[in-house]
Amino acid sequence: MRRQEFSVQEENELIQFLSEITFGFLGTVDDQGCPRVTPINFVYDQGSFYFHGSRVGEKMNHMRIHEQVSFTVADEYALIPSYFSDPALACPATSYFKSVMVSGTVEVINDLSEKGRIFTLFMRKLQPEGGYDPIDPTDPRYASRLKGVAVMKIRSKHLSAKFKFGQNLSEAARDQVVSGLERRGHERDQETIEQMKKYCPHMQ
Amino acid sequence: MRRQEFSVQEENELIQFLSEITFGFLGTVDDQGCPRVTPINFVYDQGSFYFHGSRVGEKMNHMRIHEQVSFTVADEYALIPSYFSDPALACPATSYFKSVMVSGTVEVINDLSEKGRIFTLFMRKLQPEGGYDPIDPTDPRYASRLKGVAVMKIRSKHLSAKFKFGQNLSEAARDQVVSGLERRGHERDQETIEQMKKYCPHMQ
Repeated sequence: MRRQEFSVQEENELIQFLSEITFGFLGTVDDQGCPRVTPINFVYDQGSFYFHGSRVGEKMNHMRIHEQVSFTVADEYALIPSYFSDPALACPATSYFKSVMVSGTVEVINDLSEKGRIFTLFMRKLQPEGGYDPIDPTDPRYASRLKGVAVMKIRSKHLSAKFKFGQNLSEAARDQVVSGLERRGHERDQETIEQMKKYCPHMQ
Repeated sequence: MRRQEFSVQEENELIQFLSEITFGFLGTVDDQGCPRVTPINFVYDQGSFYFHGSRVGEKMNHMRIHEQVSFTVADEYALIPSYFSDPALACPATSYFKSVMVSGTVEVINDLSEKGRIFTLFMRKLQPEGGYDPIDPTDPRYASRLKGVAVMKIRSKHLSAKFKFGQNLSEAARDQVVSGLERRGHERDQETIEQMKKYCPHMQ
């Protein structure tokens, strides 16, 4: 299912990003109207986000009261020190990152075969090397466990993405950041340069 | 300022964790009562969390309406595959992580010298190698910029931490996970074993 606000290429980059990141942050609201942010492992499939957890607990109570939730995933690629672009002032210090922010409604999945399908997606994402018997809801070893766990689906109403890699910089300033990253050579700096080249208008 | 719910050792481990993690997730509530989760760089200092951002925008509007916020920081150390402890079922698959969850009220910092102090904390955390002139609010180059940016403080009312490293496992199951991590040898697996030894009651 394609989202109308993104191009096919953007959609594919989002799906790729969401498949690489193992956990995100769920925002719920309690009966006093106060927010709570909980880290959870998740899978994304066809426009929806899925997670699982205990059938009891504070987070589940919040979602029963207020089905509107927020879900955010982010990955920080690099801290960009100020001296890459300014020898004196601290102000240009920043970070480059990707983030995806979703708002939508949450629903509980009760159907056992759908629960089995979702856990299979989880295992493919988080344990792609296999090493377990297929999650078959008619297998009594799995059926009882599938019944005992809560599986939730966030139906995304609005999804926004921010990939921040210096797109707002002048060409000269961007060249300075690229040189700085090349000199520094931290683990993800080369990857960050590749993202800058991909997303910065002057470099395309 | 010590928090009464933690021992000195636990408090020191929390402070260490919060100094290592560069960003967290802020939960706010909009005028419709719906949550929003925003990734932000932060510093922790003496029981409070600080962040900065644009003086206008959706997140700032939410906090004007509803000063109660949630802030969560998490770091995933290792995905633990099911076959470390069960040759057949997928169910034991899990992840080991540290998380800290705070709820409190947010306030805007307007005092320029306090803003300068907080940005200095940010720079010490995110750019510890230095390379910038001291952030002095009487320096006109900094004063105008400090005026133009919003700095917020979360006064923590409740703080909870979860360091999940297999504490609930039997001694035999934990030994299997340690052996599995040793064999696998991913980048953070040795560090994960050390955390297991630190937090697992059987290993102390």
